[in-house]
Amino acid sequence: MTFNVQIKVMPLKDLLDPQGKAVLGGLKNLEIHSVEDVRVGKHVTLAIDASSESEAKQIAEDAAKKLLANPVMEFYEIETLNL
Amino acid sequence: MTFNVQIKVMPLKDLLDPQGKAVLGGLKNLEIHSVEDVRVGKHVTLAIDASSESEAKQIAEDAAKKLLANPVMEFYEIETLNL
Repeated sequence: MTFNVQIKVMPLKDLLDPQGKAVLGGLKNLEIHSVEDVRVGKHVTLAIDASSESEAKQIAEDAAKKLLANPVMEFYEIETLNL
Repeated sequence: MTFNVQIKVMPLKDLLDPQGKAVLGGLKNLEIHSVEDVRVGKHVTLAIDASSESEAKQIAEDAAKKLLANPVMEFYEIETLNL
């Protein structure tokens, strides 16, 4: 079965996020003033062939740890959807 | 009130996603073979000061259209959370 797993990788809350600050500046220039804070990260969608949702989640966890997220600067969250 | 709005910006389904292909190659090198497809996009978190959830969503929609997503190559999805 193919599972559609979503992984969100964001900069850690305590770290500066220069890309987010740049977007915030851009929004001010566009006269959008009610946005107070912006953080920009990655969104990764994986199509995983696995026999169960928990197996798919485990594979995604493995992929996030080994390749997608740098734990020194980022955290990740995983969400599974059955296709 | 401050609303926490999540925007997911992904490459359109019909387009090639070189970053996703690179991640897929990286996963194969790490002996993770059950991942069949990878797409990589942006995940943006906005803290928006608004009087209602629908107003916050409207502002996020505006920001996504004007700055965050390029409709020629990307689509976006918005999700609101009340902080």
